Amino acid sequence: MSRQQREALDALLRNAPKSPDATVAEARAGFDQMFQAPAPDGVTVRDTTLGGRPALELEPADRAAGTVVLYLHGGGYVVGSPRTHLALAGDLARRARTRLVSPDYRLAPEHPFPAAVEDGLAAYRELLGQADSPSRIALAGDSAGGGLAIATLLAAREEGLPMPAAVATFSPWTDLTFSGASIETKLGIDPIFVRSDLEGYRTHYLGQQDPSAPTASPALADLAGLPPLLIQAGSNELLLDDAVLLAARAAAADVDVTLRVWGGLPHVFQHHTALVEEAGQALDEAARFLFPHV
Amino acid sequence: MSRQQREALDALLRNAPKSPDATVAEARAGFDQMFQAPAPDGVTVRDTTLGGRPALELEPADRAAGTVVLYLHGGGYVVGSPRTHLALAGDLARRARTRLVSPDYRLAPEHPFPAAVEDGLAAYRELLGQADSPSRIALAGDSAGGGLAIATLLAAREEGLPMPAAVATFSPWTDLTFSGASIETKLGIDPIFVRSDLEGYRTHYLGQQDPSAPTASPALADLAGLPPLLIQAGSNELLLDDAVLLAARAAAADVDVTLRVWGGLPHVFQHHTALVEEAGQALDEAARFLFPHV
Repeated sequence: MSRQQREALDALLRNAPKSPDATVAEARAGFDQMFQAPAPDGVTVRDTTLGGRPALELEPADRAAGTVVLYLHGGGYVVGSPRTHLALAGDLARRARTRLVSPDYRLAPEHPFPAAVEDGLAAYRELLGQADSPSRIALAGDSAGGGLAIATLLAAREEGLPMPAAVATFSPWTDLTFSGASIETKLGIDPIFVRSDLEGYRTHYLGQQDPSAPTASPALADLAGLPPLLIQAGSNELLLDDAVLLAARAAAADVDVTLRVWGGLPHVFQHHTALVEEAGQALDEAARFLFPHV
Repeated sequence: MSRQQREALDALLRNAPKSPDATVAEARAGFDQMFQAPAPDGVTVRDTTLGGRPALELEPADRAAGTVVLYLHGGGYVVGSPRTHLALAGDLARRARTRLVSPDYRLAPEHPFPAAVEDGLAAYRELLGQADSPSRIALAGDSAGGGLAIATLLAAREEGLPMPAAVATFSPWTDLTFSGASIETKLGIDPIFVRSDLEGYRTHYLGQQDPSAPTASPALADLAGLPPLLIQAGSNELLLDDAVLLAARAAAADVDVTLRVWGGLPHVFQHHTALVEEAGQALDEAARFLFPHV
């Protein structure tokens, strides 16, 4: 990575409009505004439903038969939608040559925890019913959606459902107790978040519920039985230790886990393939990880 | 990995002769006995010197020009030699298509800390003098040799020497304060070590010296400025948290770091390519990591 690329991305994110006093509606509108890039060329987008929720189905022209990724978008459980993540999820689908479905899971504060987990589980259950084998399904998600992907698998495990082939997470938000040091040590280094941003999302999502509940903070859960897990993060993020702790806990529970941290890159840098070359490299690695034999 | 492969390896290691009361000479003889596999076919082995120490130079028939790996063998800083690691280091050299030099660094208790680090630094310095560019050099090591590889780079950094292209470590021993939970939680699960084994090595190596010294316990050091770092480990080892902590500290210091943990595999399973398929996969990953463009 060139220093210029990294600095350009950092400046872009630092200079993005921040509205700490925005209403939820304003925050959603601002997020929609920031993330309106379309799906990549050659990726067809269709409206569908999954697990009882609206969803977008993404299909690259040269997809391999039979595989599907359940993609859970980020946005702190409060903002974002499958549409804000068309470029990121579409790029992953394209590189993995797979169909991908991104459900519009219910958001807080209107639908607090565990609504999103219920929707993730319902989506996974429906894909299990469609697939020839659980090994043809993978999960992926970024930020809150990365945490939700793990929470969905924990909920599925509790129900006795089979595990998918793999799960890949980009800068997952996995510890809503904020126990990691990086939430302090990376303050000012993270060009996107300050602690109160995360506190705001947490309050909307959890209200007075226990932040250490396993499906709220999957990095604190017993992760035994999870499929191979890929965790990607940048070192310039408050949530760095959410990634590290998830990896540590997965390893302790005998999960095959890969933690990949890029020095000097921000939260979910995979959005920015046009700005930093590592974004595309990271998505290629994730694509190979999810379905190595495609 | 088949469960059969994993169980066969676990049984082999569990049933290996253990001699907790062995003298140093006996321990060395036992280690030499256990690890006498030759270099792989097609890898030429030559006696040489490096940094003032005897060394073995390994060269695969189809090596790419110009690259070299400085390999530091494991053995708790007390046992082992370049010869006990001919198969492992030779297999890495073969897969990476690179020349590899493995110095016979001084061992404890005859030569306590920091003798091994001094020898690692002298070896690296000599390779720097030979190479067209530091980017043609990589470091690798297993167990104590993995910790020594990181310690060598910390010593090189202190001297103002340039960093190599990358460093890969297999089950590195990086925390001689034993601060990780795995030294307790993996007791009985680890088929090779109990805590007193590690305490014995530490006593020989450090005597009364501070175990938290940066080049004794590199996972406790400031790792800023290190080159891209690969850490591989099995989940069935007392030293699992040495790998996890090293990754966490590297990420905190903005190092590009990859932590890869295989569930259910033991300490330095990369020795056992004939028994578990993950051993070869891990070495292939390490080879690609060290010199991606070769």
